[in-house]
Amino acid sequence: MKKLSRKELLQLCDEIREYLIDCCSKNPGHLGASLGTVELCVALHYVFDTPKDKIIFDVGHQAYAHKIITGRREAFLRNRKFDGISGFPKRSESEYDAFGTGHASTSISAALGMAVAAKYEGSNEHVIAVIGDGAMTGGLAYEGLNNAGSLKTNLLIILNDNQISIDKNTTSMHNYLVKLTTDKYYNKFKENVWTKLGKTKFRKWLQTMVKNLKRTLIKPSETATLFDSLGIRYFGPIDGNNLNQLIFALDRLKDIKGPKLLHIITVKGKGFKPAELSQTVWHAPGYFDPITGELEPKNHGNIWRYQDVFGETLLELAMRNPKIIGVTPAMATGCGMNIMMKKMPERVFDVGIEELHAVTFSAGLAAEGLLPYCNIYSSFMQRGFDGVIHDTALQNLKVVFCLDRSGLVGEDGATHHGVFDMAFFRPIPDLVIASPYDERELRNMLFSASMPEWKTTIIRYPRGYGEGVSWKGEPFSSIEVGKARKMSDGKGVALLSIGPIGNKGAKAVSMAREAGFNVMHYDMRFLKPIDTMAIEDAAANAKTIVTLEDGTVLGGLHGAVAEYLADRNLDCKVIPLGVPDKFIGQGSQEELYTYCQYNTEDIFHTILSALK
Amino acid sequence: MKKLSRKELLQLCDEIREYLIDCCSKNPGHLGASLGTVELCVALHYVFDTPKDKIIFDVGHQAYAHKIITGRREAFLRNRKFDGISGFPKRSESEYDAFGTGHASTSISAALGMAVAAKYEGSNEHVIAVIGDGAMTGGLAYEGLNNAGSLKTNLLIILNDNQISIDKNTTSMHNYLVKLTTDKYYNKFKENVWTKLGKTKFRKWLQTMVKNLKRTLIKPSETATLFDSLGIRYFGPIDGNNLNQLIFALDRLKDIKGPKLLHIITVKGKGFKPAELSQTVWHAPGYFDPITGELEPKNHGNIWRYQDVFGETLLELAMRNPKIIGVTPAMATGCGMNIMMKKMPERVFDVGIEELHAVTFSAGLAAEGLLPYCNIYSSFMQRGFDGVIHDTALQNLKVVFCLDRSGLVGEDGATHHGVFDMAFFRPIPDLVIASPYDERELRNMLFSASMPEWKTTIIRYPRGYGEGVSWKGEPFSSIEVGKARKMSDGKGVALLSIGPIGNKGAKAVSMAREAGFNVMHYDMRFLKPIDTMAIEDAAANAKTIVTLEDGTVLGGLHGAVAEYLADRNLDCKVIPLGVPDKFIGQGSQEELYTYCQYNTEDIFHTILSALK
Repeated sequence: MKKLSRKELLQLCDEIREYLIDCCSKNPGHLGASLGTVELCVALHYVFDTPKDKIIFDVGHQAYAHKIITGRREAFLRNRKFDGISGFPKRSESEYDAFGTGHASTSISAALGMAVAAKYEGSNEHVIAVIGDGAMTGGLAYEGLNNAGSLKTNLLIILNDNQISIDKNTTSMHNYLVKLTTDKYYNKFKENVWTKLGKTKFRKWLQTMVKNLKRTLIKPSETATLFDSLGIRYFGPIDGNNLNQLIFALDRLKDIKGPKLLHIITVKGKGFKPAELSQTVWHAPGYFDPITGELEPKNHGNIWRYQDVFGETLLELAMRNPKIIGVTPAMATGCGMNIMMKKMPERVFDVGIEELHAVTFSAGLAAEGLLPYCNIYSSFMQRGFDGVIHDTALQNLKVVFCLDRSGLVGEDGATHHGVFDMAFFRPIPDLVIASPYDERELRNMLFSASMPEWKTTIIRYPRGYGEGVSWKGEPFSSIEVGKARKMSDGKGVALLSIGPIGNKGAKAVSMAREAGFNVMHYDMRFLKPIDTMAIEDAAANAKTIVTLEDGTVLGGLHGAVAEYLADRNLDCKVIPLGVPDKFIGQGSQEELYTYCQYNTEDIFHTILSALK
Repeated sequence: MKKLSRKELLQLCDEIREYLIDCCSKNPGHLGASLGTVELCVALHYVFDTPKDKIIFDVGHQAYAHKIITGRREAFLRNRKFDGISGFPKRSESEYDAFGTGHASTSISAALGMAVAAKYEGSNEHVIAVIGDGAMTGGLAYEGLNNAGSLKTNLLIILNDNQISIDKNTTSMHNYLVKLTTDKYYNKFKENVWTKLGKTKFRKWLQTMVKNLKRTLIKPSETATLFDSLGIRYFGPIDGNNLNQLIFALDRLKDIKGPKLLHIITVKGKGFKPAELSQTVWHAPGYFDPITGELEPKNHGNIWRYQDVFGETLLELAMRNPKIIGVTPAMATGCGMNIMMKKMPERVFDVGIEELHAVTFSAGLAAEGLLPYCNIYSSFMQRGFDGVIHDTALQNLKVVFCLDRSGLVGEDGATHHGVFDMAFFRPIPDLVIASPYDERELRNMLFSASMPEWKTTIIRYPRGYGEGVSWKGEPFSSIEVGKARKMSDGKGVALLSIGPIGNKGAKAVSMAREAGFNVMHYDMRFLKPIDTMAIEDAAANAKTIVTLEDGTVLGGLHGAVAEYLADRNLDCKVIPLGVPDKFIGQGSQEELYTYCQYNTEDIFHTILSALK
């Protein structure tokens, strides 16, 4: 690639963009962010000496062009597939993926570690962190800046500012970046110099470049920026979709010592009009027509997604109870809270990609007597963990934490599976941990959670579509804390399930019934407090208890049941179904359930062999 | 208090300070920070209408004067005692404690939640967050600022800048604050105006005040500060140990709308010379002479603290292996890494109060082939959890995470107990989780952790003094991953312990032996991978297994053993000893072990009653 002319590089960008649109139209992925960074990926690999030089892509949604450039053009056809490549950078996949990402805001910290190591080892390699304005709102990014600025190690941070997270970026940092961008220098520069490039010859271009060098890399005002305050030299902003401008700037910055930040402005969805116009929709658009941009309707009949059940129900509850407030860390659309936001914008807070803040902010609301429903994807809740313990449960504050995307999430893979939450929350005192069986129960749990017996509450439910049961407009009914529900009676084997995965369990139980065996089945509903009567009933009537959970078998429902049995020396063998003790990659949810051996057939066979 | 004259208020400050020094000399606590904020606490309660107005003290070390002012003068004699008050603000203790704290950087998020709630409820109460420059380095503080700046809700943040964390503050934020403070405006102001106050009469003083109003609250330079960039109006810096200046500034700021920050400069240890001169030592000095400042030597004979064993051993290992790097989030002295820091400053990184960054930064070092030993107190590791999963274990990166202060920590109480780590780390794949039996084993585990079979590693050990075994200078011996150690043989009852608490177990076992019973005892050493042979041996020879751990009985060693037994339906009852399923308050470690019923006597009685 380094041998290509500028013209050829521009052509390469066009080809990559076309390929991205084509591939993603047939094999859904995170199109928007990656369309915006085609020039950046090309420029980085052109200017730097990868893989010796290290590029760390924060989150990783924007790294598709990078993957295609670095030998994964063909493999990209199987992007996010069970047998394909990861949708995120992954060290085990390519030596060009310097550091695996998925969760936001890790790149500066990781890059700083790598830069410090390079310096320590006497290597002259460059380390570059590419971070979006969304990820820049996370506390970890600030911690990284704060440390990088004091260490003074060589490090280049590229702030890829497309002025959008997945939803609109709502934070002060965003407002600040907009201010930098609308500063006269940037606009003057953009209009007077760069846009003329097309009209000039190469030689002339070079002259202009040199003449404008100072201005290219000048700070937007003569005063220090926020980044300079933290010891990071700030450069930019420049047009990140202008390849020549990018190459020029990166070339200059290469030789500047110390920690520095280049602010580039890109357009999310760049080069594909529908995606430029409707950026939230096109963040991860699903299947679409690559010519017209028509989106394929997601046809699931009348079946709702859990996120929509959450969103509609929350609005309904909020209309009845003025104490209810919605809180989301930059996932309003993904979790369905946009529904309430539209109707009651003053009662929903999108706090940016700041999970721990979302938790502690919610605890603050609760301390004043409000009732916050704080929705955080399960795997991102790993960031908010301390806030649930230290700021909420310990103070007995009533926040309803709703964990969307719990369990195996599918194509987003290992970084995004929400499989640990039951195990890591169970040891925390005074929590109520619940998981609904279906849409109707999610609705009723969200309703019941306002009752005083529900203390600090965790309600976990999976990504994707529900079971198709009716729920909308039905009267609410309250669920007693810690009460399991008996689904069927039987002898020999008892199935204890929690969450919607129990529907697969119920199918397996009815397959067993058809095969002539009556199997006891409890939908446990609560991991904590756990219904000990249900366990007693199971142990009294069955030689084998099968626990079924969409989460790690270590520590979760399996753990709770095993502890109960062992402490009482009840004579009952336990077979745990759930996520085994290893990291699980990407694939459809169904593929992964099968891979982890807790799909319907697996449950059925487990029951059958236990009966025999 | 509101009726007191200025002179009387100043006298009150003196009295509080004297009382603080006197109390803390007899009953150790966090003296330094609280001495620095006497004037602040008096001024806040004088200017604001507490408890209607809410003050949230970040961390809470600095809130002693606040406690004394708000009806806990007598109770303060039992500060941090088992039957006394908490060393931190605590909602259940006083209506004046608006939000419980302990961990750093929570105050802005919590205060913002409360301020938003107040606005929503139509209340005109003021909400004030008091945060130190150390806590301001944490990512959560930035997340709070980032959200506060965009929401525009009324909120006063007081940045209590004493330019020190516990150790020296090493971050960019610190450098930036120093820059603000050394700006001409602050110094000019300080010298020319405030210091003259003593010489003027009240009327004159008032005139001067009014004349200087603009300058009092002016920004240190004409340009925007970092805080202004984030939408927070910046005021100061002012002398935070000058009561009149404080009252004046708070009075003005009271009526200014929106989010604002007052930067005050205080002296940690103020008013007690030894504490002013040696601020790290006097952060929490233990017993001392209130007149001379002589510290009472901690007399434990030749017994070392675990933190010193860690510190000395790390230095020794680092001298042998140039790949070893030390990483600590602002706990260099507390965890013993200051020992290596003194000898090899270039190989130890104190990254500030930034646990998640410390983890991800360490993962970055490991990605480049270095071997980081990252020491984080167990309860603070709740902040770094996601980094261990997402950035380290998932990528199979070799970082040795050393969890000092695991288990019940004593007087710091509920917020600081490190009792959840075994339970929350156990479900994470590919981790090695170990805990040494004594000093010698800690040394050998730190040594062994460099071997390839030790993957991403957690080594947990408690706060305080070891068992008194010899270790220093002894040859290293390597420990096989996942291998338990049989301490004694026996029938009927088997004790499976992990960590130094096993020494109490061994004592109980020898008490049982003296009573005529031979009890099997395994020091499990590893929670993960767990030694299943040891469990098999125990189950084969005992009717009852007693698990013993300095952590929650839910999910930890108890969980691991119960799961193993239940999955195989082994006929063995389990009695779990450890932290029960509730939050545990403060007290000495021995008091708390007894309270949780796993002190030596409890273990002995448990064994005995199981035998009968």
